[in-house]
Amino acid sequence: MTRSILVATADSSHPHAGDPVFDLHHRGKMETVSTVAVDGPDALALAYTPGVALVCEAIAADPTLTQHYTWVPNVVAVVSDGTAVLGLGDIGPAAAMPVMEGKAVLFKQFGGVDAVPICLDTTDTDEIIETVRRLAPSFGGINLEDISAPRCFEIEERLKAALDIPVFHDDQHGTAVVVLAALTNALRLTGRDPGTTRVVISGAGAAGVAVARILLQAGITDLAITDRKGVLNSERGDLTPVKRALAVDTADRYGRSGTLADVLDGADVYIGVSGGTVPEEYVASMAPEAIVFGLANPTPEVHPDIARRHARVVATGRSDFPNQINNVLAFPGIFRGAFDVHATAITEGMKVAAATALADLVGDDLTEDLIIPSPFDPRVGPAVAAAVSEAARRDGVARITGVPTR
Amino acid sequence: MTRSILVATADSSHPHAGDPVFDLHHRGKMETVSTVAVDGPDALALAYTPGVALVCEAIAADPTLTQHYTWVPNVVAVVSDGTAVLGLGDIGPAAAMPVMEGKAVLFKQFGGVDAVPICLDTTDTDEIIETVRRLAPSFGGINLEDISAPRCFEIEERLKAALDIPVFHDDQHGTAVVVLAALTNALRLTGRDPGTTRVVISGAGAAGVAVARILLQAGITDLAITDRKGVLNSERGDLTPVKRALAVDTADRYGRSGTLADVLDGADVYIGVSGGTVPEEYVASMAPEAIVFGLANPTPEVHPDIARRHARVVATGRSDFPNQINNVLAFPGIFRGAFDVHATAITEGMKVAAATALADLVGDDLTEDLIIPSPFDPRVGPAVAAAVSEAARRDGVARITGVPTR
Repeated sequence: MTRSILVATADSSHPHAGDPVFDLHHRGKMETVSTVAVDGPDALALAYTPGVALVCEAIAADPTLTQHYTWVPNVVAVVSDGTAVLGLGDIGPAAAMPVMEGKAVLFKQFGGVDAVPICLDTTDTDEIIETVRRLAPSFGGINLEDISAPRCFEIEERLKAALDIPVFHDDQHGTAVVVLAALTNALRLTGRDPGTTRVVISGAGAAGVAVARILLQAGITDLAITDRKGVLNSERGDLTPVKRALAVDTADRYGRSGTLADVLDGADVYIGVSGGTVPEEYVASMAPEAIVFGLANPTPEVHPDIARRHARVVATGRSDFPNQINNVLAFPGIFRGAFDVHATAITEGMKVAAATALADLVGDDLTEDLIIPSPFDPRVGPAVAAAVSEAARRDGVARITGVPTR
Repeated sequence: MTRSILVATADSSHPHAGDPVFDLHHRGKMETVSTVAVDGPDALALAYTPGVALVCEAIAADPTLTQHYTWVPNVVAVVSDGTAVLGLGDIGPAAAMPVMEGKAVLFKQFGGVDAVPICLDTTDTDEIIETVRRLAPSFGGINLEDISAPRCFEIEERLKAALDIPVFHDDQHGTAVVVLAALTNALRLTGRDPGTTRVVISGAGAAGVAVARILLQAGITDLAITDRKGVLNSERGDLTPVKRALAVDTADRYGRSGTLADVLDGADVYIGVSGGTVPEEYVASMAPEAIVFGLANPTPEVHPDIARRHARVVATGRSDFPNQINNVLAFPGIFRGAFDVHATAITEGMKVAAATALADLVGDDLTEDLIIPSPFDPRVGPAVAAAVSEAARRDGVARITGVPTR
């Protein structure tokens, strides 16, 4: 009995039939499949009772055998509470499912990582944490997705502390990795040094905070972050703990303050992860050979046609313009690399290694319109995975520490 | 990047290489697979951002669209806490995983039902219930598995009350359905009427309780259940609430008491779901043309070679003897049938319908050695599913209530 045969005659149409998006989504985008044939009594007796009992007993005696005899070490839970889905906001767990299924599909296609979408019927921080902790024996890693800030920060931090498997909030770190890769190449193209480059990030949510943190780690020092009320700095009394800590490490250093317009004046790099629109005159006020990443989807903060009038390097989140900053460049290879060495965590070093590997793939092809590889470049997943595995060994989080065999 | 290509060169051996069971289990038994091709930017823009946002918005506006545009309505969570795994007992969530994966494989192969194994890192009744409730938006149904009695009863009942999707504890109800099917044919073969047949069940755990309940519903009236201390009846002061309620409906009616030996003397039917061994002389004391089901695995309570000396119809849980009472005859078709009509629950009527469909498949082929179909009979899944769908409509739990189209 296959699923497709069974349902094919039972329901051949659907409410939005004819719309390409809905046609593609009809009956969902994924399935579970057996990797063993249970085609007769003998096979059944191996895969299920009585044979399976031997495997259970072996794992009970030595839990590390889970790595060899279950699907667990290759499967990630894609966990959301539906509170910050794409640009749609808090649409709840049921409506979030198509995104989580899509994410699961991309994990498999681009990283060979099995993935299960889990949409939770709670938005309480403690409940999300305890639920994921209870699920953890079933998964090799946890990918948090579309959970609103600032809860996402606490949830990720506490789960990382509680679990000995990779926990990764893709909206933060996937975005950060790809932005760092693209920016590395944009700086190379424009002959800039990270230590003397002025960077402005608009948006201090999950993505903005993580991008800022990875840029600081990569050597950017002159960095200002804005939210709706202007530059994050310690003069402001309205900051959350996360934003307050970030202000100290960014605008405070160079005494930056004021509005987005104020800090963009003369800036080298603009990174938009905020939505909204940045007026053309702000972009015009930036330094010569400016770098503009407008990453809001589907409408970038600066339309690339406008940005190009004033900037030398322009990137967006869209596939219909050059230089697409797409998380799918990062998360499949990051988990592939972590799983290949049974990593206990995803470290800062593994993220930076992923970004470096991505940037390096562009190599001598580097131009204004090619600062980051295409998601469909088949070298991407393996290159990111290899770099991440190596960094995991270096950082001491690889449970398999031998010489890599591939 | 496919999983098999990636891992093939990385790890070609494993600690128990050469053992057929462990070879089969190497790297687990299942994977997730995309049902849509994401082979270029256009497909990516449909399956993920920006296209997927349309589907999310549609579901946010009308949650019933989950049924059309996600994998949720076809996927069951196979949930265990690892406390009563096969005959191994409380081996914990990690060691339970091979069984849950095997179950997931069988769900797909025999029912076309996608399935995700979930082993929980808690054995607390309230925590299991709240965890499954929070997961529920991600699944079309919940199959509880290998959770020890009496917690399994409360967990199932409270989840059934809380959720509007099927919740089914297979150790109880899957076993009960297949036993009822086999017994129906055994009674037919031996010319017995349920209302005048004396039945003894040894074992008052999950399976024993559920078998007793379904037999009562099917018209058996003279039923005695034994646990380690003898027959459950109201004279005993040591019974749990579940056992006390059962005693009233079984041994109390006919004043049965004493030991297993006492009640087997003259009994028509013995059903063992207890483990342990029943001495040959007990079997010899049963009525002529007795029916003996020794279902403990891998060692039946009565070895079939011994049982056959005294009984006319003998069944076990093993595939290497005739008349295998195997839950795989029931659960895949039951969920297939429930999912096909988007049932909100699995009712008693749906279970009895499944048993009747199974019994009817034997038809005129009925002999002592063929009272139940083979799990590999391709008619089983569709026949059970069709009967269950029809019963769901009759019982008013089908969300799709129109005339079935297959």
